[in-house]
Amino acid sequence: MANIQQVAKQAGVSVATVSRVLNGQGTVTAKTRIKVEDAIKRLNYEPSMLGRNLRNSESRILLILIPKISNPFYSEIINGIETAALTHHYNILLCETDSNPDRENIYFDLVRKKMADGIISMDPAVNVESLIELAESYAIIQCSEYTVESGIPYVTIDNEEAAYRAVKHLIKIGHEKIALINSDEKFLYARQRQLGYRRALEENGIPISDHYIHHTQQIGFEYGQQAMRKIINLKDRPTAVFAVSDMLAIGALKEINNNGLNVPDDIAIVGFDKIDFSNMTHPTLTTVAQPMHKMGTIAAEMLISEIQGDQVESIILDHELVIRESTSG
Amino acid sequence: MANIQQVAKQAGVSVATVSRVLNGQGTVTAKTRIKVEDAIKRLNYEPSMLGRNLRNSESRILLILIPKISNPFYSEIINGIETAALTHHYNILLCETDSNPDRENIYFDLVRKKMADGIISMDPAVNVESLIELAESYAIIQCSEYTVESGIPYVTIDNEEAAYRAVKHLIKIGHEKIALINSDEKFLYARQRQLGYRRALEENGIPISDHYIHHTQQIGFEYGQQAMRKIINLKDRPTAVFAVSDMLAIGALKEINNNGLNVPDDIAIVGFDKIDFSNMTHPTLTTVAQPMHKMGTIAAEMLISEIQGDQVESIILDHELVIRESTSG
Repeated sequence: MANIQQVAKQAGVSVATVSRVLNGQGTVTAKTRIKVEDAIKRLNYEPSMLGRNLRNSESRILLILIPKISNPFYSEIINGIETAALTHHYNILLCETDSNPDRENIYFDLVRKKMADGIISMDPAVNVESLIELAESYAIIQCSEYTVESGIPYVTIDNEEAAYRAVKHLIKIGHEKIALINSDEKFLYARQRQLGYRRALEENGIPISDHYIHHTQQIGFEYGQQAMRKIINLKDRPTAVFAVSDMLAIGALKEINNNGLNVPDDIAIVGFDKIDFSNMTHPTLTTVAQPMHKMGTIAAEMLISEIQGDQVESIILDHELVIRESTSG
Repeated sequence: MANIQQVAKQAGVSVATVSRVLNGQGTVTAKTRIKVEDAIKRLNYEPSMLGRNLRNSESRILLILIPKISNPFYSEIINGIETAALTHHYNILLCETDSNPDRENIYFDLVRKKMADGIISMDPAVNVESLIELAESYAIIQCSEYTVESGIPYVTIDNEEAAYRAVKHLIKIGHEKIALINSDEKFLYARQRQLGYRRALEENGIPISDHYIHHTQQIGFEYGQQAMRKIINLKDRPTAVFAVSDMLAIGALKEINNNGLNVPDDIAIVGFDKIDFSNMTHPTLTTVAQPMHKMGTIAAEMLISEIQGDQVESIILDHELVIRESTSG
């Protein structure tokens, strides 16, 4: 294959001139530009992007850190990020961290070594200290899960308010014995959603029973099943459950069905996230919709602005309570 | 930040020598190597990966083409690819093609422009002609879906045999009126699975009713629901359904439930893929398990071998019929 030297020779110009044409710099006359473009075409020359990006010292790649690719919560956000990235001629590199600091470090190295221009972190278990250190030199945005103290801009929803509305809906349709299936309190969203749960009960004069609050290690289906097994066996069995993720809620639903009980007649359920599957269960799941696609596009646009040197502000997006069969019969 | 010139000066060697140390070439004495490594440490020098990869003319990035990130079928395969890639010090770039040739072309360009070393294509709707052309100059592997005529190595399962076993299981438990929810016959796997369905019926002397065979445009949940709606309304209603994807099967299950019918008592269901959700439905889904994680690791290893200049052979992996509640009560 032809190289840049051969193109320069063919066009009768210097290598620097070819380079200026390739990089779209305006300091080349139209006549020269045409000569160079002809030579490129005739020699079938394909400039190496790696080389071009090195000269521009940008890779045009954005890293997306997610804990688990198989968690459907991330699919729509990724879709949004990808749409915005492609519009701005960036490509995304999807990095499954498995919440493993060693893996995270491999990906952080890609930024340190200029293989990527910036990071969107969606991993609630990310090593925050490393992220803060990295953010001193590189563009980083937190998406969905975040740490305020890090000073790294984020896009998210109001988790406390969203949980408050979900529980208030259960109270409004007549429930007082409402269990909470929450994830680990080390996660900010888990603490915020628990606050919302408590506020809704307190405002309505319903005492908070600690044995109605269950924490799971992870937000997977099996963990929802396990938590529900304990809740079903409580002496004073709740008539409703609020789970902080749809995956937990779908696990709870399965366990209730397995026990021959009916949703919503025996136990009503509200989930969180509005993943695709929340509409495929029988009954369909009442859930809190996060604007996931929008969150993704905004995260990507914030990151690209930051890469271009702009100051960016954190953004809190609206959520929506979607009432379906699991609370309405 | 320090550059390579400063490292060379500090170590008292030439830039070429620093470069040789960085690239792990053995032509440097131990004493010189230590001097260079000391200088790198003292100056906190971080070599640009872009520059290094350019010199080695490899990006150490593998492209993965998938039609939809939100399709859970791909999650486990991607996981397998990622595990193998990281082991061999490659990173993966996940590309959602949306089965859109324009998007595909953006990703193909990344390979043409040396931003990626090779491609694993999992998109059944990929532009095969472009792929064949690309395969003349670059490393490409087909995973799960493939075209034999392309000459591009693939890893897959025996779709005809897998479908045959699924339908034979339904016949064995007493069904004769077995409907098929298939995707578009433009896909090789759809044609192969239909052959397996026909062979199982023919071998057991069951006549094939064309009105029992339904084709869907896509393999999503809604398409399974729509197909099942038509099947339920048939005069001579089938007692069992074989759907060529779990997503179609879950749609069918929802539609049967919505009609107040019972699975498996009124209609038994077999799906295909063993996605995570096939075990979360009520009842759980009998399905054909593809070794998705293994398929991913093998695809990645085949691609890396090809990048390294080795000849690779196509591989057909074993499948497994997983019998669950939707056919066993």
